[in-house]
Amino acid sequence: MRIVFIGSGNVATHLARALKNAGHEIAQVYSRTQEHAAALAQATGAEFTSELSEIRTGADTYVFSVKDDALEPLLRNMPETNGIWLHTAGSVPADIFRSHVSDYGVLYPLQTFSKKREVNFSEIPLFIEANNEGTSRKIEQLAKSISEDVRYLSSEKRQYLHLSAVFACNFSNHMYVLASEILAAQGIEFDVLKPLIAETAAKVAEMAPKQAQTGPAVRFDEKIIEKQIRLLNDDTTKNLYRLISESIHKRSKND
Amino acid sequence: MRIVFIGSGNVATHLARALKNAGHEIAQVYSRTQEHAAALAQATGAEFTSELSEIRTGADTYVFSVKDDALEPLLRNMPETNGIWLHTAGSVPADIFRSHVSDYGVLYPLQTFSKKREVNFSEIPLFIEANNEGTSRKIEQLAKSISEDVRYLSSEKRQYLHLSAVFACNFSNHMYVLASEILAAQGIEFDVLKPLIAETAAKVAEMAPKQAQTGPAVRFDEKIIEKQIRLLNDDTTKNLYRLISESIHKRSKND
Repeated sequence: MRIVFIGSGNVATHLARALKNAGHEIAQVYSRTQEHAAALAQATGAEFTSELSEIRTGADTYVFSVKDDALEPLLRNMPETNGIWLHTAGSVPADIFRSHVSDYGVLYPLQTFSKKREVNFSEIPLFIEANNEGTSRKIEQLAKSISEDVRYLSSEKRQYLHLSAVFACNFSNHMYVLASEILAAQGIEFDVLKPLIAETAAKVAEMAPKQAQTGPAVRFDEKIIEKQIRLLNDDTTKNLYRLISESIHKRSKND
Repeated sequence: MRIVFIGSGNVATHLARALKNAGHEIAQVYSRTQEHAAALAQATGAEFTSELSEIRTGADTYVFSVKDDALEPLLRNMPETNGIWLHTAGSVPADIFRSHVSDYGVLYPLQTFSKKREVNFSEIPLFIEANNEGTSRKIEQLAKSISEDVRYLSSEKRQYLHLSAVFACNFSNHMYVLASEILAAQGIEFDVLKPLIAETAAKVAEMAPKQAQTGPAVRFDEKIIEKQIRLLNDDTTKNLYRLISESIHKRSKND
């Protein structure tokens, strides 16, 4: 397929590279910021532009991979084109395209992307959706060319999937951040936590997270909970500690 | 060394097995609950007892691996023995032994243990402490016989290390629990999150957690933050979502 990318962030970068490697042609990359468009274009052998009016209109697929808030205004200024329009967002309904184009859909990769880090795209679950049968087949074909795990999911359910990913990824990473700050204040290197973090994640590949729960909160060891809260030095983190411990304890009581 | 275990929980079980595999003799296992003592005794070729008065007094080392709250009352009822007394707790000072025995210390393994899951002990950071030079050398020797990563850490700093582990392990696992509940309510299997969870943990083996942060909160995408809070159906989880998002955002502002 000939593909135009609208956006050049982390998701766009990893997805465009994977599609290029799978034999698709990345025809053009658009970004508001010319140097970002140029960087991704160079990596994928594409043209680039920072003007919506210069977007090529004859591609097979247009992949919109921009911040959720940016998508609506951007669509209002898009030129008419052939082909399928699809976006890569967890919480934006497919219908956002309805008044703009006749064939559209979604290709949502459930993964965390950082520009500097390579990921194996073939293992990433891709959740797709389309507004008609023919478009559905084309998006499925595109998705299957880069991943072995392609699933259909409605816009309604996809927003819950995205919400779960915010907890499992963004929020668990923030727990690492808070841990790293506690260690830094004591002059202990973050490295010591790496085997623990790796094992914590590895455990839930084999057992349900609730079964994997350990620590003072699940034991309801109030003495140590109160002691640990006293060690923290800002109120937000104290509140966080208390609230997460309550949330853990509530679930262990219901067993 | 001839070692007696006081306690037969997750830490005791994994530590006793590792010590046995390294060639030490597990002479006896004590637990309040006879069947627990018997199970660990059987796995390590040890005797077992559920009576403190029957604890053998001639071993080289006594490893206390019980709930933090249980340690103090247990020590008051321990018979006098030869050898070193040590505990495996993150937040209990070494000095808890002071009025009971002349040689004592700590061997704190920084890992999450579940009985059903094997762990590679040689990669687990062990944090040790002792009340005198000779005991220190013996505990170091014991620790180095099972792990390649043995470090000294004071009781004062160890409690912060434990606190950081609660965030990095117990609290991040709870984020997986909340994610799994959100998916279950939608009939989506938890499996879909496994590549994301694995990658989230793998990222911080290579980059600082703060650099690895992605998601709506770090972008301060208020529209999606409010939308996701509305999808949640209990107040504790809504509060948690809001508080963690604020905590993430606060740190991104300070960059």
